[in-house]
Amino acid sequence: MIRLSTTQSGFEAEFRALLDQARETTAQVDAAVASIIAEVRKGRDAALLDLTARFDRWQPEGAAGLRVSAAEIDAARARCAPELLDALDLAATRIERFHAAQLPNDVELDDTLGLTLGMRWGAVDAVGIYVPGGKAAYPSSVLMNAVPAAVAGVQRIAMAVPTPDGVLNDLVLAAAHRAGVTEIWRIGGAQAIAALAWGTESIAPVDRIAGPGNAYVAEAKRQVFGRVGIDSIAGPSEVVVLADASQNPSLIAIDLLAQAEHDESAQAILITTSAQMAHAVEHAVAEHLTTLPRSAIAGASWEKHGAIIVVRDWEEGAALVDRLAPEHLEVMVAEPQALFARIRHAGAAFLGANCPEALGDYVAGPNHVLPTGRTARFASGLSVFDFLKRTTWISAERRGLDAIGPAAVALAEAEGLSAHARSIALRLGQGAG
Amino acid sequence: MIRLSTTQSGFEAEFRALLDQARETTAQVDAAVASIIAEVRKGRDAALLDLTARFDRWQPEGAAGLRVSAAEIDAARARCAPELLDALDLAATRIERFHAAQLPNDVELDDTLGLTLGMRWGAVDAVGIYVPGGKAAYPSSVLMNAVPAAVAGVQRIAMAVPTPDGVLNDLVLAAAHRAGVTEIWRIGGAQAIAALAWGTESIAPVDRIAGPGNAYVAEAKRQVFGRVGIDSIAGPSEVVVLADASQNPSLIAIDLLAQAEHDESAQAILITTSAQMAHAVEHAVAEHLTTLPRSAIAGASWEKHGAIIVVRDWEEGAALVDRLAPEHLEVMVAEPQALFARIRHAGAAFLGANCPEALGDYVAGPNHVLPTGRTARFASGLSVFDFLKRTTWISAERRGLDAIGPAAVALAEAEGLSAHARSIALRLGQGAG
Repeated sequence: MIRLSTTQSGFEAEFRALLDQARETTAQVDAAVASIIAEVRKGRDAALLDLTARFDRWQPEGAAGLRVSAAEIDAARARCAPELLDALDLAATRIERFHAAQLPNDVELDDTLGLTLGMRWGAVDAVGIYVPGGKAAYPSSVLMNAVPAAVAGVQRIAMAVPTPDGVLNDLVLAAAHRAGVTEIWRIGGAQAIAALAWGTESIAPVDRIAGPGNAYVAEAKRQVFGRVGIDSIAGPSEVVVLADASQNPSLIAIDLLAQAEHDESAQAILITTSAQMAHAVEHAVAEHLTTLPRSAIAGASWEKHGAIIVVRDWEEGAALVDRLAPEHLEVMVAEPQALFARIRHAGAAFLGANCPEALGDYVAGPNHVLPTGRTARFASGLSVFDFLKRTTWISAERRGLDAIGPAAVALAEAEGLSAHARSIALRLGQGAG
Repeated sequence: MIRLSTTQSGFEAEFRALLDQARETTAQVDAAVASIIAEVRKGRDAALLDLTARFDRWQPEGAAGLRVSAAEIDAARARCAPELLDALDLAATRIERFHAAQLPNDVELDDTLGLTLGMRWGAVDAVGIYVPGGKAAYPSSVLMNAVPAAVAGVQRIAMAVPTPDGVLNDLVLAAAHRAGVTEIWRIGGAQAIAALAWGTESIAPVDRIAGPGNAYVAEAKRQVFGRVGIDSIAGPSEVVVLADASQNPSLIAIDLLAQAEHDESAQAILITTSAQMAHAVEHAVAEHLTTLPRSAIAGASWEKHGAIIVVRDWEEGAALVDRLAPEHLEVMVAEPQALFARIRHAGAAFLGANCPEALGDYVAGPNHVLPTGRTARFASGLSVFDFLKRTTWISAERRGLDAIGPAAVALAEAEGLSAHARSIALRLGQGAG
């Protein structure tokens, strides 16, 4: 953990180093992934069965056994604690409501010249949702990825989830059922991405793939991009907490550690106007770490990537936040809305002391799939927009063509595109123009 | 050119072959591009000057000479024909108006439980627009890329345009001036993309890069993706024209050729319910080709990639369009709106006989940067959305936290994320929960 203050000499260099810190080394898996994709494109179902036996150490009798049946889903749900199913349902309902509010309107624009211009939104036909298996199988991620697709109106939502050693995660199946997933396939890794993108005898190809995964999954998404759409490839997670002197240091500390417990490359940063608060939070972090079950991970993240920055005022603080463009931003100050209004770049903001980031991770409603690694400067969280696309359209009366056609002819000729020019000139009755 | 009919045996196989036809071979330039990017990151301005001398055969005295001055822009505009400046202005005004209509609204959602959820749109700070130089320097592309950024509210729009042998394109500079570009740099290729993404002593880095380019530019965009955002990487252009028996075959033919004249890998497809129209259009294409200045290119494209497909009815026709998901779709039938309503996938549609695609390429208003190669299944044309990003936010009264906090604690514990659970439980007053 590094302690910085904007009043110290050399602050700018230290802050730049923090910005440029690489928190993740990318494994070189390009060639391995290319070969797995080629294997699936060639061998299709049979290749999927082989690869699943090789990587997940289980194999059904035939490709049909790769699909989770309705009976298996029902059985899994029956094994879930009712209060967890209720919690999933509350989360799904709130996520649905928030994402429905994002749904955009079509545009239709008449000009006075006799042309009508429009933009029509439509859903992608078929989407693949990748869900990691094993210990990192998170039902909340199933909701966050599948619900926006369902709300957008996607008709076919195919989920891929590996089941290492054949073990299914009941709550993941329950979440998929609640979220409106239409097919669940017990496949993972690059082979799952290849099957979703290219299709096999059993699995119809999809148009877009979303969802997190390991280095193989991320590289496979990169390699099938263009054939299908993909969501952004997430890096390690991060939070910036802004706190003034009035806050409870123990709550700030646990919020920082909630970020840090994800994995050792996660990053938690406190920016505060109070040197006293900085000390108190540092103490409280140490204290929480003595009792947290995941203290080994959280402690390593805090040690390697954590930072506490003391600023003179919130003008300075807001400027630092914009340079960090964090995935998560907690604003725990007296007037959180006013400070948030001065900040331009963050994936998601949590305003006031009653909104720990974990509330947003599960049940608040906005998505928890967010831009990491300073990409909030130009990227956004997962939303219905990831599952919609637009078609623009034009229609014209004859007088509309007459009004703007000559300008198009002039520009087309200036660009040397004579068939373009002629296609308009012929209609204007100017012959071969 | 291939002639197909849905009534012929073997149609499905032939149509599939058309769908899978690769129209472009991608040059292997990965290593060359990686080395250019490394050179610019290390040598910065000096490297840019060297690379510009090497590739564009031109070198100013210092890095300041890479920037086009206000005086140069004024001089370039003064050399443009007034009617072309007027045409550019008409186009820019209409493009501005259409893209302003796309601007989305923020979301703010109060629930009855004591939580407020929101989504706030904001512009990217700085954008790079790449404009190809030499013979493919299109002022219309400058407008189509820069205007949406300006309408979105981007404060800094830096344009990169190579000037081979030092030659500036006057109309490109005039378009940049009209579109609201704030800086113009006479740089091109992978070195321009590297400079925009990483910055040099003279050029501040941008957050997002848009605009078309050759194989080097496309690969450089791929390689800097993540550091900055990029727009989609366009493939060869295509049009599908739907025409019934009532249309003028000569107009259909010239519209097909307007697509084909872009380059030999462009594709033009006619789908018609009339076998007679199919013959008439084929004839008219041959006739136009005898007089078109770019007939060598257009003829080669039509020969290699063109297709005429006769369908039984528009139900069949619409289904084929959705499988092709074309970049451009002309709907020249008696009721174009009704047929368009049945089609789900296309980048941009041109409805009725008064709307040749070329009208949209220049002056209609919607963007001409569109998804190619069947990607309209999941992708959309360039728009203000490419230059905006969203921040979601949450705020809660204490009763809101009380209402939904317990469900979040249950889910966090089920996922084994105990610091997440504790960050909420502590606030709920349940101790270390």
